[in-house]
Amino acid sequence: MTDEIQTFSDRLLNEIDRKQSFAVAGLDPRLSMIPHVFRREPFREHGNTLKAAAESVMVFNRSILDAVAPYAAAVKPQIAFYEAFGLEGLRAFIATVDYARSKGLIVIGDVKRNDIGSTAQAYADAYLGRTELDKGVSLPAFDLDAVTVNPYLGSDGIKPFLTASARYGRGIFVLVKTSNPSSAELQDLTLEGGRKLFEHVGELVDEWGREVAGERGYTSIGAVVGATFPEHARALRKIMPRSIILVPGYGAQGGSAKDVLPCFNEDGYGAVVNASRSINYPHGTDLDVSREKFQDLVREAVQKMNEDINGALKGAGLLRW
Amino acid sequence: MTDEIQTFSDRLLNEIDRKQSFAVAGLDPRLSMIPHVFRREPFREHGNTLKAAAESVMVFNRSILDAVAPYAAAVKPQIAFYEAFGLEGLRAFIATVDYARSKGLIVIGDVKRNDIGSTAQAYADAYLGRTELDKGVSLPAFDLDAVTVNPYLGSDGIKPFLTASARYGRGIFVLVKTSNPSSAELQDLTLEGGRKLFEHVGELVDEWGREVAGERGYTSIGAVVGATFPEHARALRKIMPRSIILVPGYGAQGGSAKDVLPCFNEDGYGAVVNASRSINYPHGTDLDVSREKFQDLVREAVQKMNEDINGALKGAGLLRW
Repeated sequence: MTDEIQTFSDRLLNEIDRKQSFAVAGLDPRLSMIPHVFRREPFREHGNTLKAAAESVMVFNRSILDAVAPYAAAVKPQIAFYEAFGLEGLRAFIATVDYARSKGLIVIGDVKRNDIGSTAQAYADAYLGRTELDKGVSLPAFDLDAVTVNPYLGSDGIKPFLTASARYGRGIFVLVKTSNPSSAELQDLTLEGGRKLFEHVGELVDEWGREVAGERGYTSIGAVVGATFPEHARALRKIMPRSIILVPGYGAQGGSAKDVLPCFNEDGYGAVVNASRSINYPHGTDLDVSREKFQDLVREAVQKMNEDINGALKGAGLLRW
Repeated sequence: MTDEIQTFSDRLLNEIDRKQSFAVAGLDPRLSMIPHVFRREPFREHGNTLKAAAESVMVFNRSILDAVAPYAAAVKPQIAFYEAFGLEGLRAFIATVDYARSKGLIVIGDVKRNDIGSTAQAYADAYLGRTELDKGVSLPAFDLDAVTVNPYLGSDGIKPFLTASARYGRGIFVLVKTSNPSSAELQDLTLEGGRKLFEHVGELVDEWGREVAGERGYTSIGAVVGATFPEHARALRKIMPRSIILVPGYGAQGGSAKDVLPCFNEDGYGAVVNASRSINYPHGTDLDVSREKFQDLVREAVQKMNEDINGALKGAGLLRW
């Protein structure tokens, strides 16, 4: 079948190989931490407005994207930081996605959407597919390569995303075991029979993924598993062997390159690792950093992350390049 | 303390009394079901675009809001149906919220947001609070009265919403037991010790609510419990006696007025009931309905819903008016 659309998993794995990188660069704009050089002009022009904030975010993100594009397997904007600026913030979100894609980057929207039936369908249309305007007339709205999805509502909330993934070559990452301390309050509960809730969710993810398998042995239904819990990652790696794990919590949240190893399979694939803080704010509290210096620091941060992860994989005999 | 902000729960209960209504009017715009009278002009002007769709939604919603304002305790736009039209859709969402509030209506945003730490904070700022632009300078973004929240990440994902609820007199409704068939896949799992997962979540909701108690005996931390599972509602009513239950699944999803009774307390309060389909699409497949006829049908639908629910409460000796 020559018309078959490449799966998201195959696209992501090819991008990993091409860049020799498992790094996902988060795009989590926190206004107070953005260097002055990106904020000065928009606030001078628009005053203390959401528009000024959103334009600052946009120029800040463009600088990061220019710096990381050759070195990151994908980028992951966290939509909450854009929604915080209302409609203007979402305009910056869409502009960020467009700019990232113009650089050939895969964009994973960290949106954690979840709902049921026709509502879940509306989300799947909005983020991965197309919204119908009339019979035979449909348009993409946010048009992302993949999104994160919350599983609390069960498969009713997942199926429209599976369909969109298969149809448009897109992917999802289902929250399985998150990196935060209180993730244990629900996710670690022990079920009758002895399994943990997150293991049960991992089994569902494995099942859902069967519908969207790629040529390289992975499915487009991935999972979010925090690097802060390596022992849980080991268990989940076995439960969902063909899902790509999106690992948050690397760096700032306390996870190390060694901690992410359990998320990889014996074939040296199976995970991508997100860092936001270290890549977005390598200047620390030096808000007077220049644009050029900032981009150098961003570039160094993502390269260091690649060396760190690839080095750990090499040490474990898992690096394939 | 004369400066104390009225809690969301007190505001909602007063509104229920004032209108003698427990009805929440959903605002779930599905383009293909919107009468031609609302779509004709925007599509003539803007062609087959997301802008045309969003403008159709806006005039459709305004007609519904004009009709339901005197009879509904609150309205609940489901944001997925707006996100489906991208930035233009979100412009219609914000315009809908503004219009509803100009009519004095309480607006519950069905957004099901969920994240952790500073990301959850960004969502709480975006939907219930204010986003900081500079020291001492902050602006509201979406500015809703309450939102729905997903609990899968535990209390890390809830706390910023609790703080915003207390500070700004806002509320949240935590997904506890949803109305869809597959809600059982996670929510009904039996935990070690015999309880169900949804019961455990109900206990957390009860605990979280202690921080945001109003004068009328309810907290501003409510819960979503589907009308399709009355036996579960009975159990949850006892577990979280001071939480207001937002009941979806009334009408179209198969729940009846009798089914919602277990969500109420002995004092005749403790629940609000959402209907979307019957209030948004009372014209059925008659897309040629006139604006006036449509508004009559909407008005009748919400009045019938009030009679139905109040009648069931009266029959059970629970109606307080």
